Amino acid sequence: MGNNNAKVKKWIQENKNKGIRLLKKLVQEPSLQGNERSSQAIIIEKCRQLGMEIDIWEPNGAELLKHPYFVSPRTTFLDSPNVVGVLKGTGGGKSLLLNGHIDVVPEGDITQWEMDPYSAEVKDGKLYGRGSTDMKGGNVALLLAIQAIKDSGIQLKGDVIFQSVIEEESGGAGTLATILRGYKADGAIIPEPTNMKIFPKQQGSQWFKIDIYGRIAHGGTRYEGVSAIEKAMTVINHLLKLEMIRNGAINDPLYKNTPIPVPINIGKIHGGTWPSSVPDVVTIEGRMGVAPEETIDHAKADMQQWLKKLAEIDKWFEEHPVELEWFGARWVPGTIEPDHELMNLLKNSFKQVKGKDPIIEASPWGTDGGLLTAVGNIPTIVFGPGTTEVAHYPNEYIELERMFETAEIIAQTILAWCEVSED
Amino acid sequence: MGNNNAKVKKWIQENKNKGIRLLKKLVQEPSLQGNERSSQAIIIEKCRQLGMEIDIWEPNGAELLKHPYFVSPRTTFLDSPNVVGVLKGTGGGKSLLLNGHIDVVPEGDITQWEMDPYSAEVKDGKLYGRGSTDMKGGNVALLLAIQAIKDSGIQLKGDVIFQSVIEEESGGAGTLATILRGYKADGAIIPEPTNMKIFPKQQGSQWFKIDIYGRIAHGGTRYEGVSAIEKAMTVINHLLKLEMIRNGAINDPLYKNTPIPVPINIGKIHGGTWPSSVPDVVTIEGRMGVAPEETIDHAKADMQQWLKKLAEIDKWFEEHPVELEWFGARWVPGTIEPDHELMNLLKNSFKQVKGKDPIIEASPWGTDGGLLTAVGNIPTIVFGPGTTEVAHYPNEYIELERMFETAEIIAQTILAWCEVSED
Repeated sequence: MGNNNAKVKKWIQENKNKGIRLLKKLVQEPSLQGNERSSQAIIIEKCRQLGMEIDIWEPNGAELLKHPYFVSPRTTFLDSPNVVGVLKGTGGGKSLLLNGHIDVVPEGDITQWEMDPYSAEVKDGKLYGRGSTDMKGGNVALLLAIQAIKDSGIQLKGDVIFQSVIEEESGGAGTLATILRGYKADGAIIPEPTNMKIFPKQQGSQWFKIDIYGRIAHGGTRYEGVSAIEKAMTVINHLLKLEMIRNGAINDPLYKNTPIPVPINIGKIHGGTWPSSVPDVVTIEGRMGVAPEETIDHAKADMQQWLKKLAEIDKWFEEHPVELEWFGARWVPGTIEPDHELMNLLKNSFKQVKGKDPIIEASPWGTDGGLLTAVGNIPTIVFGPGTTEVAHYPNEYIELERMFETAEIIAQTILAWCEVSED
Repeated sequence: MGNNNAKVKKWIQENKNKGIRLLKKLVQEPSLQGNERSSQAIIIEKCRQLGMEIDIWEPNGAELLKHPYFVSPRTTFLDSPNVVGVLKGTGGGKSLLLNGHIDVVPEGDITQWEMDPYSAEVKDGKLYGRGSTDMKGGNVALLLAIQAIKDSGIQLKGDVIFQSVIEEESGGAGTLATILRGYKADGAIIPEPTNMKIFPKQQGSQWFKIDIYGRIAHGGTRYEGVSAIEKAMTVINHLLKLEMIRNGAINDPLYKNTPIPVPINIGKIHGGTWPSSVPDVVTIEGRMGVAPEETIDHAKADMQQWLKKLAEIDKWFEEHPVELEWFGARWVPGTIEPDHELMNLLKNSFKQVKGKDPIIEASPWGTDGGLLTAVGNIPTIVFGPGTTEVAHYPNEYIELERMFETAEIIAQTILAWCEVSED
């Protein structure tokens, strides 16, 4: 086994350029929602090279719609294929699922980027671009790990199931579709950008929309109306208080270094139709964090009840209550036992490669791991090379050395978990 | 003279149906910006019947663009004619300009209307429809006044210049074009919907847009970003304080019954692109009132300087200053001397017709009177039959009796101001 670890280390050391080339190609394809197919084509070709059994399909919207865990702004996935590549083992070992999403979030305000977001420029050991950290760099680490094993002539007992899924950024319909298609495993790793921290617990989250009402009037006699913008400010302050109360109640040591474990984020606001009219409706949209051991329904009830208290702060809300809607994306929370064997193997591989113990924390965001746990019943760990702070940011980058270290840690974990066949 | 007043009163009493018919036809033509021509055709035919010298022209966008007082979202006025009808006097009397706009604001949310906005239904003495109050009812009052004089066989010394202009709702390019075409007079009346109050002073107003910056982050680690929505709340509170300071300094008795004489209205807000991202830009749009004796430039400087103080409240604004832009519509403020002869004659006519003194106030909004005063140098009063509270609202209406009373008051004012020729 020590010999096999040395082989994969050597292979990764000698084939870094392969990893950089693959990541460049992936980042250069802007795989925004609905536009994933050219990135997936690159993944498919890589899986073919690796001799995997390849499964490519467009998730069935009609079937997904019937599932209680389905969320997505869309219901057809035409031209947005999921890709699964299976490296078959000889049998007798445990199977490992390696899941990464191919979709990226929009680049945002282009003026804040110092380079083309899809240029994949390399500078000072970092590769820049939308999706580099979240999470194409993680996906490349997975593929390098598999290739290192394969090209070193190592044959595994257990299956390795590599998944390149769509829709993670919109709530996980891609991963849900893999579960419904029958993909199972004894354990799973998702290399989301954790700064190489290991997350045995992942918080969930869900999007909400609140309509806040005012009364229209001419701006010149604005005192005859009621500004929905001013009322929205009251609502936002009220939500900030709810966030404080909910987070004050969390004392999980895995969150001890996190300023706000499960934030309530107001991400969008819009309202009013005319500069010189008093606005009569404002809509805010946001994301509510759900603690790893909390249920989605519990968090929903928390907010619903809290919003009712608005009438105590301002009588206006008594006759003009705000309207709360849960919409769009939702990520189910998930946990794995802290002393699960996969956890121990991953921590051990980390220590061997990095020469120190890993940081174990709970995640600041949801991942598809919640679905793998709750629906697929697959114990899942989130651990990846990307830089948490730059995910969804302008000038997103990944530190390439971390990608190679992660590849090696995952390769070692695969060897230990799936076991090597001596045949 | 008493005899002439009695004649016009009698004519109006006996010809109310003419006024209602004319108003119906005008309201039934939706004279939204760019669609004024069919309403103007009705006005032109009326001016022809009244034996006026008629001038019809499309304002010259290229010429207007060079003028410092020009504002409009468009620069060509093809198919959007201005109409002026002049009732020539025999000479020796003062001339009077009667100005009304033919454009109407959009009907807005159609579901809030209890009838077709362009049906011109009459019910319980009210005629309903977009533009009925703002301000086709006022225009009909002007035309009835002129017709009452004409059909009573009265010959005036001074000219009466009737103007049916486009573009008032977008900042007055139509009235500006009449001034540039050379129309002048010794005084002017604009029958905007004042609830039959007399406005010797009109506030101005101008639209502004403020971009407020934050720093994007993932919503799950929102503490690593800076919310532009929260910063916008600081800016809005800061603007409310400016409004308070500016209005605290106004002690004009004409504003004594107005809760906020020159409001700063925030009419629109939008920002953020993703519910689970910290928003990095929020834009607010609004309308700043300009006091009747203030200049547009003074008000602008007030806001510009006030926004600089944001850095004292929150250091964030030191490195991320907000960006202020003046855009879209602007209405110049205007005043007439309170003891101007036209004021006295109008007040006197009001008392004769209504049997009580008129309410004299300063206006809560801008009108084309600001341009007539500032650019045309024509002392202007705003006084009209429409209901202030329903202008720009769903279910807009005008009380028909007020329209006839206003016609009579204006007819009497014309007789006294322009004087009757005894030839």
